[in-house]
Amino acid sequence: MRTGETTIRVRYSECDPMNVAHHSAYAVWFEMGRTELLRGDGVSYADLERAGVRLAVVELNVKYRRPALYDDLLRLETRLVEASFVKIRHEYDLWRGREKLAVANTTLACLTPEGRAIELPPVLRAHAEGQARPA
Amino acid sequence: MRTGETTIRVRYSECDPMNVAHHSAYAVWFEMGRTELLRGDGVSYADLERAGVRLAVVELNVKYRRPALYDDLLRLETRLVEASFVKIRHEYDLWRGREKLAVANTTLACLTPEGRAIELPPVLRAHAEGQARPA
Amino acid sequence: MRTGETTIRVRYSECDPMNVAHHSAYAVWFEMGRTELLRGDGVSYADLERAGVRLAVVELNVKYRRPALYDDLLRLETRLVEASFVKIRHEYDLWRGREKLAVANTTLACLTPEGRAIELPPVLRAHAEGQARPA
Amino acid sequence: MRTGETTIRVRYSECDPMNVAHHSAYAVWFEMGRTELLRGDGVSYADLERAGVRLAVVELNVKYRRPALYDDLLRLETRLVEASFVKIRHEYDLWRGREKLAVANTTLACLTPEGRAIELPPVLRAHAEGQARPA
Repeated sequence: MRTGETTIRVRYSECDPMNVAHHSAYAVWFEMGRTELLRGDGVSYADLERAGVRLAVVELNVKYRRPALYDDLLRLETRLVEASFVKIRHEYDLWRGREKLAVANTTLACLTPEGRAIELPPVLRAHAEGQARPA
Repeated sequence: MRTGETTIRVRYSECDPMNVAHHSAYAVWFEMGRTELLRGDGVSYADLERAGVRLAVVELNVKYRRPALYDDLLRLETRLVEASFVKIRHEYDLWRGREKLAVANTTLACLTPEGRAIELPPVLRAHAEGQARPA
Repeated sequence: MRTGETTIRVRYSECDPMNVAHHSAYAVWFEMGRTELLRGDGVSYADLERAGVRLAVVELNVKYRRPALYDDLLRLETRLVEASFVKIRHEYDLWRGREKLAVANTTLACLTPEGRAIELPPVLRAHAEGQARPA
Repeated sequence: MRTGETTIRVRYSECDPMNVAHHSAYAVWFEMGRTELLRGDGVSYADLERAGVRLAVVELNVKYRRPALYDDLLRLETRLVEASFVKIRHEYDLWRGREKLAVANTTLACLTPEGRAIELPPVLRAHAEGQARPA
């Protein structure tokens, strides 16, 4: 199983009055992790969209262990752990140095622009098979 | 178990190129639901913060069933389902008319401004006990 | 010149470590003001988009006088002050009670989905003429 | 006058149903530009905040010329153009390759945590004087 890494600098606008990154920002970072993992296989999500493929998040689960602070330089590990005909599952670990700040997973469904479920296109299937046995 | 209701108009800036509300926006809406549930008991989260109490999200789980669209008028049901000495658990159902768009739950931990876990203050305990048996 | 009013509750996620609403949130609120002003004339921006009309912000100017705080209930006044064949100009005043928190203006251009400038469609022209003399 | 450069990858969540970056995202990017310009002089805005200094945006003016698209790699030029006893003015040019997408400027005021205007602290004054003649 291959792992993609993304570096994230915590933005001021992502932080809230508790002086920590707001918990909704993590979902944005995980999406960046997925984009970079695809890019590492030469696949552009922007191109997929232009070809009529949508990947919709159908499930999100996050455990927040320690807060991320403004200006922190974080390291996000993104793993594609499972792919079926219509869905892809990723897992995430978010690190600041050796501290694990959060663990998470998401499930994406492959859709037409009108929102109908479709099979993963060949380029996504190849991407998934390079990293995980399809279910 | 009491239920709070919050009306949410989907903002243009919350929608993405798939023409649907971005999945990270839901975490913001759930937070609005918690704030309104507190307000219904005469408790202001802004006052709690001024008194040195922080409620940090330590877990978030969302299942997205159908997309929310720009300008949709949504109804969010928020339930406080469990409270222990240091944590509070909520459940959420998000509706557009009779369509259930998403179900979710969160766990909050009570912290000092420095991030140390503390017991729920009396006003929060009373709020929790009015709606759920403490664990 | 008619004025539309929108009520805005400041969200926790819109606030930053200075304990005030982040300055980028105001642009989102002004957009809500424009949507509500249109709705007051029976025009849905969502319908306009489905009909192939885009309104792109080409200029934004904001003066921030006093901070908006978490949970504040604000009142936004939105005025359509000028319309030409292809552009619409709005002005905004943001209030908390009798305190004026910000003044702003925006200019929108009417575009095709591909980004080419086009004349305002009749429904937008009627909306504009009801509130301002076209330039 | 020195210029700082920041590279920005447009995030999916920053894009709206027009398939372009939402105009509110630019304010976030300009803030990143200011942070990086400070960092280039060895000044951390996070440290300034811990020392009790706040820099509040009191004015924002943006002209949007061409849209930024999802996954675009943009280059932001940030210039500190003027500093008085209590305010700092920056100018911005946002580029995609040789296309200028937007020009903007902001004015920041130096405040105490309670929101009272104060003189720029020495470290900020040195930063400003290195790049612009104080007004």
